[in-house]
Amino acid sequence: MSTTATAPNPFKIALVQMLCGADKQANLDNAASHIETAADNGAKLVILPECFNSPYGTKFFPEYAEPIPGPSTSALAAVAKKRGIYLIGGSIPERDQDKLYNTSTVFDTRGELIAKHRKVHLFDIDVPGKIRFQESETLTAGNALTVVETEFCKIGLAICYDIRFPELALLSVKQGCKFLVYPGAFNMTTGPMHWELLARARAVDNQAFVAVVSPARDVDSGYVAWGHSTVVNPWGDIVAKTDHTPGIVYADIDLSIVDAARSAIPVQFQKRTDMYKVELQQ
Amino acid sequence: MSTTATAPNPFKIALVQMLCGADKQANLDNAASHIETAADNGAKLVILPECFNSPYGTKFFPEYAEPIPGPSTSALAAVAKKRGIYLIGGSIPERDQDKLYNTSTVFDTRGELIAKHRKVHLFDIDVPGKIRFQESETLTAGNALTVVETEFCKIGLAICYDIRFPELALLSVKQGCKFLVYPGAFNMTTGPMHWELLARARAVDNQAFVAVVSPARDVDSGYVAWGHSTVVNPWGDIVAKTDHTPGIVYADIDLSIVDAARSAIPVQFQKRTDMYKVELQQ
Repeated sequence: MSTTATAPNPFKIALVQMLCGADKQANLDNAASHIETAADNGAKLVILPECFNSPYGTKFFPEYAEPIPGPSTSALAAVAKKRGIYLIGGSIPERDQDKLYNTSTVFDTRGELIAKHRKVHLFDIDVPGKIRFQESETLTAGNALTVVETEFCKIGLAICYDIRFPELALLSVKQGCKFLVYPGAFNMTTGPMHWELLARARAVDNQAFVAVVSPARDVDSGYVAWGHSTVVNPWGDIVAKTDHTPGIVYADIDLSIVDAARSAIPVQFQKRTDMYKVELQQ
Repeated sequence: MSTTATAPNPFKIALVQMLCGADKQANLDNAASHIETAADNGAKLVILPECFNSPYGTKFFPEYAEPIPGPSTSALAAVAKKRGIYLIGGSIPERDQDKLYNTSTVFDTRGELIAKHRKVHLFDIDVPGKIRFQESETLTAGNALTVVETEFCKIGLAICYDIRFPELALLSVKQGCKFLVYPGAFNMTTGPMHWELLARARAVDNQAFVAVVSPARDVDSGYVAWGHSTVVNPWGDIVAKTDHTPGIVYADIDLSIVDAARSAIPVQFQKRTDMYKVELQQ
C-alpha cells in the first residue's frame, strides 16, 4: 500500500516485549494475546521481538524453522486481518528448501504479507569470557535491503545485529524511510553496552524514528535477552522504553518531527554525493 | 611517517579546551602555553579546538583568515618541533586566493605539516527559535577525506559538523584509521543534544577511539560553545571528558583495545560488500 495524503499522523505503535519459550504454540498464543491487547489500546502498528516463536539458539533453529507461509506466519496474518492493523512479526527461523534464515515478516491491515526481511548480517561474535554466538552455524544470511511501504510512511526493516551496520540504515533512508525498525535480542553483555546507543545513533544519523524490540528477559534461558525495548525520535531522544520484564511499550509516531529535524539540521540534504557514495551493489 | 612496529602504545593525548577570543595573538600564545603544559605532562599528541585563533562567526572568518603556511600555522609548527610532539591544530579560517576554508593542520614531531583537512560539510543549520548559523555565507567546503599517517596509527581527521556524516568515518576506517579526531564547536542547542551521542556513535560503529575537542565556553561570545571535550574508546565508553571550563583533557590511547573490540564483535570484517558499498567518488 502506498503512502497516502490521508494517512493518520501521529499513529500509535506497540512494541511487544514478550517471553519467548520452548513451546511454539504457547509463543504464538502469547503473541496473539499481546497483539490483541495492543490493538485494544489503539496501536495501528504492532512489532514483535526477534525469534518470538522459538528459543534463540543455533541448535533450536532447525527444529523450530518453518516455511513462509507456514503455521506461524498464518497466525500472524490472521490477527493482523482480524484487528485491521499492521504487524511486524519480529522474526522466526525460516526454512526455505535446505537453508535456514532469521526472517521478519510484515502484514498489512488485510493480513496480506507485504514484506519479508532475512537478517543480512549474521550474529557471529566472540567476546572472550563473556559471550560467544555463531548464527552462521545453522543460518544463511539474506541478501536484500528491506523497505516496507505502509500507509504511514516507508519503514526500514532489519534485524538485531543488522543495526551495527550504518550502511543499511543509510540506504533505507536514501530510499525514503522515516522509521527504522529492528526486532532484536541483545544479550547481557552487548545489551548494556550498545542497545540504546545503537538505537540513538541510527536515529540521530538518519533523523528517523527508531524502534528496537526485544524479548523479555528469561534468566533460565540459554541465551538471556537484555530486554529494554525502546523508541527513539529523530532528534535521538528516547521517547518510550521499558525494563527487562514482559510488557508492551507504546509510542506515538509523529512524522512531522522527522520533517522538522531534517529541516532544522539538514544533513540528509547536505550529503557530499560528489565526494562519496553509499550504494546497493547491483 | 609510517606506522612502525616500535611505536609506543599506549600513547598519551591531550585535548586543549581553551577560551578562543578576539585577540588572535593572545589565542596563539594561549594555545602554545597549553601545548607546552600538555607536553610537560607527557602528551605525545595534542589537539586544539575548532577555530582556536578566531572568534567563531561568519563575519570574523574573512578578518582572521590567513594562508597556510602563515603566522598561526608557523607558531604551531614551532611548538610541535620544540616539544617533539604531534599537534593537530584544531582549525583556523584559511585564505587560499579568493576563497576561505575552515581548515585543520597537523604537524609531526619535527614541526613538518603532514596533513591539512578543510571542513567538508559546512555548518548550515536553522533550528527555529534556537540557533541559525550558515558557514556557507563566507566559507567554501573542502573536497577531500583526510587520513593522517602517524607513528602511532592512522588518524581520521574531520571538523565538527563532519561528525554528523557517518560516511566520512566509514571511509576513514576503511583506509585503516583506528582513531578519529574532530575539533568541533557545538553550541548550547546541539551540544547537549548530540555532542556526546555522535562521538559515541562514531566510536561504536567504527570500533575506533574518538576525540572531540571544543573551545571552552564563553557566555559573552556571539557563539557560545558547549565545551565537554571528550575521548571515547572503541567500545563506545567515555574514557575522559570535562565540563565547559578551560582545561586540558588527557587520555591514554591503547590501540590494542581497537584490535580487541574488532576481534570480539567483528563488524569491520562482516560488512556485506557484496550487497552495498561505501566509496569515495573518483
